[in-house]
Amino acid sequence: MKTRLLPLAVVLLPFMAWSAENGPLSAWNASPAKSQILNWVAQSTQQDGPDFIPPDQRYVVFDNDGTLWPEAPLTFQLQFAVDEVNRLAPSHPEWQDNPVVIAAQKHDMAALEKAGQQGLMTLLTLTHSNMPVEEFDQRVDAWLASHRHPRFGCPYNKLGYLPMRQLLDYLRDKGFKTWIISGGGIDFMRRVAGEMYGIPPEQVVGSFSLTEFRLTDDGTQLEKTMKGAFYNDEAQKPVSIHLFMGHRPVAAFGNSDGDVPMLQYTSANKQVKPLGVLIHHTDAQREYAYDAHPSASGKLINGLSLAPHYGWVVVNMKSDWNQVFDPAQCSYHPAK
Amino acid sequence: MKTRLLPLAVVLLPFMAWSAENGPLSAWNASPAKSQILNWVAQSTQQDGPDFIPPDQRYVVFDNDGTLWPEAPLTFQLQFAVDEVNRLAPSHPEWQDNPVVIAAQKHDMAALEKAGQQGLMTLLTLTHSNMPVEEFDQRVDAWLASHRHPRFGCPYNKLGYLPMRQLLDYLRDKGFKTWIISGGGIDFMRRVAGEMYGIPPEQVVGSFSLTEFRLTDDGTQLEKTMKGAFYNDEAQKPVSIHLFMGHRPVAAFGNSDGDVPMLQYTSANKQVKPLGVLIHHTDAQREYAYDAHPSASGKLINGLSLAPHYGWVVVNMKSDWNQVFDPAQCSYHPAK
Repeated sequence: MKTRLLPLAVVLLPFMAWSAENGPLSAWNASPAKSQILNWVAQSTQQDGPDFIPPDQRYVVFDNDGTLWPEAPLTFQLQFAVDEVNRLAPSHPEWQDNPVVIAAQKHDMAALEKAGQQGLMTLLTLTHSNMPVEEFDQRVDAWLASHRHPRFGCPYNKLGYLPMRQLLDYLRDKGFKTWIISGGGIDFMRRVAGEMYGIPPEQVVGSFSLTEFRLTDDGTQLEKTMKGAFYNDEAQKPVSIHLFMGHRPVAAFGNSDGDVPMLQYTSANKQVKPLGVLIHHTDAQREYAYDAHPSASGKLINGLSLAPHYGWVVVNMKSDWNQVFDPAQCSYHPAK
Repeated sequence: MKTRLLPLAVVLLPFMAWSAENGPLSAWNASPAKSQILNWVAQSTQQDGPDFIPPDQRYVVFDNDGTLWPEAPLTFQLQFAVDEVNRLAPSHPEWQDNPVVIAAQKHDMAALEKAGQQGLMTLLTLTHSNMPVEEFDQRVDAWLASHRHPRFGCPYNKLGYLPMRQLLDYLRDKGFKTWIISGGGIDFMRRVAGEMYGIPPEQVVGSFSLTEFRLTDDGTQLEKTMKGAFYNDEAQKPVSIHLFMGHRPVAAFGNSDGDVPMLQYTSANKQVKPLGVLIHHTDAQREYAYDAHPSASGKLINGLSLAPHYGWVVVNMKSDWNQVFDPAQCSYHPAK
């Protein structure tokens, strides 16, 4: 019997290889990082295994900017704010002496960066407040429909990383609840997360400020304000996870030092064997390589140095991913 | 054939009645309120009907205090805070001149009420902050295990209204996602909502303040503080619904004027035919009757006067519910 089985395996081998390549994580190369993630999922979902995680505890959290889509040359939301300032400035003569507006009009990113947190708040106040939530949604939709990423030539909402979108699908298929815990604005991200990532609004958490409720002639209105602003980065990420999700995650995926507290919070989950993953931007050809530069946003210095201690998986975008974006979503231009 | 069918129906009738009584909403009497709710669910879930609501829009919100469990003589969380002050005061001599502590020790509810919002914040500061979230959870659990409602003689977490618990189950069975949007504290309610109502932590929204994250020798800690306090009542309820849930509800259930903005927000949902329901506390024998008294917490004056305009269903607890509590959960003492 053995002699008949061996040739059968040989015959099947090419199909098995084909199957792996087109499997649930086909955009991931066979690599230690992929194996570590797959092994963790297998162990967490093996009913009788020592590391089984009951379905009602399977909450996993993902950063967005730099983890699920690019954050360069600007975070996409900052690009939206800059584009909005330029669109709106002609009808707001009162803005004309505002240095942040001038910087945005000149696309002077150095000046914008120099304006710091205060400058960012000004930009957000001009573009993310003093309007009903529905109008903000429409503005985001219009921007997405009319703007393309300067380097890749694609609409911003077609630039989700294919390997991560596959991973989200795979985890949900295995009974995990996928959440975004991002520094990005909550209303902005919710506009794209459903279609891009299959994540509903209530599982998207980000920086936020409060709305104001009022009655109107034909119903009600929620007006966006800058009150109660909460900047969801660094040590605020575990805070927002507790506030919104109310569970300690069993896995966390990030890409920058701003994600380190979220990964530490996850790795300190003593109920389970948790997983921490860092996406390392190493691919200047297909995307960007910028992690080690201390002044860049999205820097990853503490994270890499802490990874061995916590056992975090470090994904090397250049060698671990055979695709970065999804060619079915957009014919992007990879050239730098 | 007809002559044989008629007697069969007669034979079946008692069983049909039995079936209705023990059906999904057996604690509800046959009444216009019950019919209105059931009709709305039937129409919303009828695939080809004009009022069909797609499953991904079926978000329904419930107030908690007075809607899912009693809020008298004090809200249960306020009773917890008073009991905690009394438990902790002996080891806090520095509290001894605090008028709020003195009022709590004397069970002087008039003095507590007089201390107003500031007094409430003092009480919450002493009992709901300056401890890790896990310790707060343990304190709530210990209180639930050791205290009983002064009138009904039952543990507080056995006092969910049976008709509402049945309604939650029924709505979930029909594909609705059930959320709590309450003035109660988010961490306090999350301790009971899973077992009592089948609602997971991330679908329980309440008043909150922020935690603080820090690293510890053996992991991480989230410490409860009073910073960023958000009181989730009145016009803040639509605000928190937008922030946490990110959908406009298709149905809202409340019992007091503090729920009116949430019901108005829901009733202004133009995508669907929405449902608004007010639980009217009319049963002094089995529970309480207090809605019309303008000074009582949980008063329902604006709500009742607005109900006809918005088409809200008003549930009369006395006549519409044949059970208030679940005798299987606790042998409660109904006598006032």
